[in-house]
Amino acid sequence: MKKLINNPRTVVEEAVSGIAAAHPGLLEVHTDPIFIVRADAPKQGKVGLVSGGGSGHEPLHGGFVGYGMLDAAVPGAVFTSPTPDPILAATQAVNGGAGVLHIVKNYTGDVLNFETAADLASAEDIEVRSVIVNDDVAVKDSLYTAGRRGVAGTVLVEKIAGAAAERGDDLDAVTAVAEKVNANVRSMGVALTAPIVPHAGVPSFDIGEDEIEIGIGIHGEPGRERIPMEPADAIVDRMLGPILEDLPFSDGDRVLLFVNGMGGTPLVELYIAFRHAAEVLTGRGITVDRTLIGNYVTSLEMQGFSITVLKLDDELTELWDAPVQTAALRWGR
Amino acid sequence: MKKLINNPRTVVEEAVSGIAAAHPGLLEVHTDPIFIVRADAPKQGKVGLVSGGGSGHEPLHGGFVGYGMLDAAVPGAVFTSPTPDPILAATQAVNGGAGVLHIVKNYTGDVLNFETAADLASAEDIEVRSVIVNDDVAVKDSLYTAGRRGVAGTVLVEKIAGAAAERGDDLDAVTAVAEKVNANVRSMGVALTAPIVPHAGVPSFDIGEDEIEIGIGIHGEPGRERIPMEPADAIVDRMLGPILEDLPFSDGDRVLLFVNGMGGTPLVELYIAFRHAAEVLTGRGITVDRTLIGNYVTSLEMQGFSITVLKLDDELTELWDAPVQTAALRWGR
Repeated sequence: MKKLINNPRTVVEEAVSGIAAAHPGLLEVHTDPIFIVRADAPKQGKVGLVSGGGSGHEPLHGGFVGYGMLDAAVPGAVFTSPTPDPILAATQAVNGGAGVLHIVKNYTGDVLNFETAADLASAEDIEVRSVIVNDDVAVKDSLYTAGRRGVAGTVLVEKIAGAAAERGDDLDAVTAVAEKVNANVRSMGVALTAPIVPHAGVPSFDIGEDEIEIGIGIHGEPGRERIPMEPADAIVDRMLGPILEDLPFSDGDRVLLFVNGMGGTPLVELYIAFRHAAEVLTGRGITVDRTLIGNYVTSLEMQGFSITVLKLDDELTELWDAPVQTAALRWGR
Repeated sequence: MKKLINNPRTVVEEAVSGIAAAHPGLLEVHTDPIFIVRADAPKQGKVGLVSGGGSGHEPLHGGFVGYGMLDAAVPGAVFTSPTPDPILAATQAVNGGAGVLHIVKNYTGDVLNFETAADLASAEDIEVRSVIVNDDVAVKDSLYTAGRRGVAGTVLVEKIAGAAAERGDDLDAVTAVAEKVNANVRSMGVALTAPIVPHAGVPSFDIGEDEIEIGIGIHGEPGRERIPMEPADAIVDRMLGPILEDLPFSDGDRVLLFVNGMGGTPLVELYIAFRHAAEVLTGRGITVDRTLIGNYVTSLEMQGFSITVLKLDDELTELWDAPVQTAALRWGR
């Protein structure tokens, strides 16, 4: 294992310290317990948004802390839920009196620990709601998850709910729009290689030189099937099929098409996949109205990518377009 | 070799078509010959900026086409210079009557082909200047290069010269500020793994399970030395030493610190490297005044990273902060 680290046990502490050094003025880092918070938090009268989960998916979630998106992010150990303690501390830190929304990817550990933190915050009279993101159409239940997993669609929930909170929507409204994004977003991923968790030191799964795993999770959890390597367009077809049937998306829809790199796949390849995904959607009468392409929800150095499709309406489009200023997503201000 | 492609021979065409699909309104793609151009080019009275080089370094250069940065980018085949023909076509397309600046990384093929294109454009009464970027302190001469290589510092030249052109500086002034950035920027890279060029199908070099290559080029050209794997902080020390001595940077300087991923290194690791690099600079009395971190000048899926340090003054800082709207770099507007 060759990794650009000093010690498998201090990866998260050191990375978070790097995030603080890289983005002063934008965010602050607390170290005991560890969480990342907007430099200007709490904002009085604004709904606070908190997300988090295991590390190793960067820029998710710390890269999305800032104006128009998250107020705080809570990184756990690599591929491991944060405990309730830092989630509670982050919730307290962003509470501006208008309540706090927890955006939680559907993994059993995350759901339980955010729930406990929400209960503790409620006992301190902080009103907390939760949205559980479960956009992955690949499998029904999975390693670590009852029900569908929360994957790259989480970025879209965080951006759009963040814009709603920033314009002054109340806790009910911000929660409703986050639920609406989750109800209208579908994703599926594929892996060409396996990630290596630093403190494990070996690949998370074995995969042959000519095999790929269709429907992979972002921690390398098994997907739908292991198949021989195929051309990019054929892989895109395999992924888009279940996505488009699931909602379903249909002729006349406007969508946001998001091609997400899992960490180790070059951008030049993501554009090749994007090209065909856009062609397929257009061929079905679906308008690709907004786009996002790049490494946003990663799985360490895993080679692979996911496709996410969000059905847009005017409200979601306006909130997507609204200004955002974070380390990893930035426009319009 | 597992790559998310359809055909090694059509990688660039398909990727460029994906770039067009992903960023409508921002840029347009010409296919015969291939170049990427701002949707609003040519801008009358504005100096046009053209860069280019082999593909496989994305988002360089196509991801930097847009307001406040490049007017056009010319992608060659993977790790191969574009020919004079598309460079000339791009130069013509961005000529708004105020002249065109070519920003060229110092590789023999790039330099020759841009020079030929400049001669051809001059014959059509387009005034062309060239800046050769050579920020890599690792080696004096290299495979493909006489003199120092041009690497990640190219992004900073493109951003700052782009801002100068956008505010209306004339060709002399834009050229001068590009030269000034090049004179004040130093970089060095390291590789943990080798990239695989699609039409070659095998790794560009052999590297052992426990070895790293210090001073690597962005095409996997040999660097200074092959050493056993070390902790991240020790690697950063090895890279920063030659960078800081070269200009030299000294106590009291203000700098932009840029930690660039080569494609396959997870962001969480780049932040660990950034943390220590910032500590070292601060310890020497150098102020880290601006930062950039992420995958900007890549080498396909190669694991590794580079450190770039730019000495700032008020002019360079103001131009760095100026609004930019491209696929890969975007703020302030």
